Amino acid sequence: MTTPAYRRLSVEERRRQLLEAALSLFAQRVPEEVSLDDVAEAAGVSRPLVYRYFPGGKQQLYEAALRSAAEELEQCFAEPPEGPLTLRLSRALDRYLAFVDEHDAGFSALLQGGSVVETSRTTAIVDGVRRAAAKHILDHLAVRDPGPRLRMTVRMWITAVEAASLIWLDNGKEPPLAELRDWLVEQFVAALVASAARDPQTARVVKAALALETGEGAVAALARRVLPVIEDAARLL
Amino acid sequence: MTTPAYRRLSVEERRRQLLEAALSLFAQRVPEEVSLDDVAEAAGVSRPLVYRYFPGGKQQLYEAALRSAAEELEQCFAEPPEGPLTLRLSRALDRYLAFVDEHDAGFSALLQGGSVVETSRTTAIVDGVRRAAAKHILDHLAVRDPGPRLRMTVRMWITAVEAASLIWLDNGKEPPLAELRDWLVEQFVAALVASAARDPQTARVVKAALALETGEGAVAALARRVLPVIEDAARLL
Repeated sequence: MTTPAYRRLSVEERRRQLLEAALSLFAQRVPEEVSLDDVAEAAGVSRPLVYRYFPGGKQQLYEAALRSAAEELEQCFAEPPEGPLTLRLSRALDRYLAFVDEHDAGFSALLQGGSVVETSRTTAIVDGVRRAAAKHILDHLAVRDPGPRLRMTVRMWITAVEAASLIWLDNGKEPPLAELRDWLVEQFVAALVASAARDPQTARVVKAALALETGEGAVAALARRVLPVIEDAARLL
Repeated sequence: MTTPAYRRLSVEERRRQLLEAALSLFAQRVPEEVSLDDVAEAAGVSRPLVYRYFPGGKQQLYEAALRSAAEELEQCFAEPPEGPLTLRLSRALDRYLAFVDEHDAGFSALLQGGSVVETSRTTAIVDGVRRAAAKHILDHLAVRDPGPRLRMTVRMWITAVEAASLIWLDNGKEPPLAELRDWLVEQFVAALVASAARDPQTARVVKAALALETGEGAVAALARRVLPVIEDAARLL
């Protein structure tokens, strides 16, 4: 839906337009290299108008853009609680990685820190997204009261996904998104299985999750590929 | 070795003494809450003397303390290239986690970012430690030219270890250090094995590493604990 040039935008529409212009600039350049003039130009408005909406200047605009991106990111995680867990995770990761792909430099700058616009507030926004991601995963695992080991496993995997996303952007988005997604799903399966070895709650979660898998699913494919690599380890048992 | 009170410290000794006082304060409080007066008091010297050694004030002192901690941390990774890899990793993690334990709040503040004393220089110091850790691991895996998937696996695990360390400090250092260490070793084994499923180089590394393991080692213990959890998955094959 395009907005006719002669119609005045509502306050909310204007605000959204400025945030989108800012987000697309932050996706191409680190925050330090984006000025309010750039944002005004990209949105086709005057600099004073940008200041009218964001009197706190670039810092306020950056935080508002970040909040809007965080909301969008949290929507990536929503997934109906049906079918094999690896398939649900795979779909959520598809959306998450598309988000990383789109926001690119802005995503890196934010997670890598050290940016002049990074504050305890921006850190809190990012941590909120991490917490939301962990909650979604634990909900899908149908765990009401996650113990420390299961929570640590999930949080470690989320951090590892962030690290992988940054490396992926650094590597010119190689391997292709679908390959990275499958590999991240497999890493999650491996992390959970290893934790299950020491934690009865995680073991129950893994057994329940395995019961939902099919011979065509991600776990079956992983198992078929892993067996030849570890067959020699049988001598250790 | 204690320094007699009447002997004047050499420049290098004094500098070291001030850095140690700073590091122990940063271990108890976030950098924002440590003043140069606190450092002077902890070291039993005057504030002007602290300024003489660190004319750049707290920022310079913080960066120097960080550099000194980074060197200490990198020494944790040194391990002779002998015996099962899980045992070498376990010993290095023992030293790393003792470092985390000792530096406590300062370690958290640094990795969590958002601190007023965090700059691109401090971020570069921390990244240097991460790169050193990755290099040590790849050396032990005897990989001359690591491909993208093996590198990504190693870097993801390093990030996951950092996340686990922060969670561990947050959780009042529970579980006990030795338990966390064993679990992190197992997570590394799991991550490598899962990557081996898709990457021939990682598969070779895993096979070579398994050949060094014994029936009393970490991999054997992990395998014995994991098998009962995943036995139902045999139907997927």
